[in-house]
Amino acid sequence: MRFYDYTPAPSPRRVRMFLAEKGLEIETVQVDLAAGEEFREPFVTLNPRCVVPLLELDDGTCIGEAAVICRYLEAVHPEPPLHGTTPEQRAVIEMWDRAMEDDGFRAVAEAVRNTSPAFADRALTGQERYPQLPELAARGVRRTRQFMDDLDTRLGASPFVAGDEFSIADITAFVCVGFARWAKVKPEPRHANLQRWHEVIAARPSANA
Amino acid sequence: MRFYDYTPAPSPRRVRMFLAEKGLEIETVQVDLAAGEEFREPFVTLNPRCVVPLLELDDGTCIGEAAVICRYLEAVHPEPPLHGTTPEQRAVIEMWDRAMEDDGFRAVAEAVRNTSPAFADRALTGQERYPQLPELAARGVRRTRQFMDDLDTRLGASPFVAGDEFSIADITAFVCVGFARWAKVKPEPRHANLQRWHEVIAARPSANA
Repeated sequence: MRFYDYTPAPSPRRVRMFLAEKGLEIETVQVDLAAGEEFREPFVTLNPRCVVPLLELDDGTCIGEAAVICRYLEAVHPEPPLHGTTPEQRAVIEMWDRAMEDDGFRAVAEAVRNTSPAFADRALTGQERYPQLPELAARGVRRTRQFMDDLDTRLGASPFVAGDEFSIADITAFVCVGFARWAKVKPEPRHANLQRWHEVIAARPSANA
Repeated sequence: MRFYDYTPAPSPRRVRMFLAEKGLEIETVQVDLAAGEEFREPFVTLNPRCVVPLLELDDGTCIGEAAVICRYLEAVHPEPPLHGTTPEQRAVIEMWDRAMEDDGFRAVAEAVRNTSPAFADRALTGQERYPQLPELAARGVRRTRQFMDDLDTRLGASPFVAGDEFSIADITAFVCVGFARWAKVKPEPRHANLQRWHEVIAARPSANA
């Protein structure tokens, strides 16, 4: 099993935190996105979507997308459970994990990829080139601020994102709060629930992954 | 178990096709999106994200998102399998299902929600109001055309979207091809692989769901 990573990028960090929580160490290959290695061989054949993370199994099967990789790792290394154990728990945790992706990750990406010169003509991931749209960058910042508000509200009702237990949804949310700094959005002092939760997660050894 | 549906909408159709493939019939409630019922009680409390589909379990737990609902239904009604049976199969199928969502559904939604007067000031789902962006509508159409090209290429290499067997990824792709008509994008005569596959899926009884 081989993990394709790029240390500065937020999506593979989700997998790194997940691996750390599981106590797993696997062979890791850096794909230098700053140098455009994701668009060149050998990586582009492994993942024509040109994104990390990617997990290559021993038989050559390649699994893309952080959420899919983590669910696969949970299936083959169930302990400690980070996706719940009953079908109901698994569904609720997956629903929250998706909300963190859709409202958090996608919002920050919208802000960053439509602004940074590093993503000129690459406002979306993949091989096609899409121009940056300034109005979309502004919408991304607004959505990221909304994400912080909504996350604070949620964490006022629940100790962790998906309920009473730490889960993959906390990893996604925590990495997203860090990613939001790329869009110059940070939790505000008024986000007391979010701040309390953030300290709890940051104290876990996996937060250094 | 109660399924919240809106017959004209594409996302709940994914769940309807899935239920039909499983041979399941469950209590169904229509949420009239054309009348804005998703923003009002009782629905807004069940799903503050204000979207269908939603699955309400007997204990009151609410599960949102078509993909999450289908994975839950697979867990409690495993036969016939539509997500694969081994961890590796499940990961590959989930990866392809996500690709159909990200490259297909999200592209069409980008085109439709930034154009149709029905979505004025609601370019994104949810309670927040976001204005329509004409440039984003144009990008959505371009991405939808790219989706058709990529799907045709994939179906030239594989009989079904995720491999040799019919799966949830075919349901998502098939519903998305129908949804694309809302953006006035249809498969072209040159998409011979896509056309062949589409006839095969359309012949399944679940295609009428």
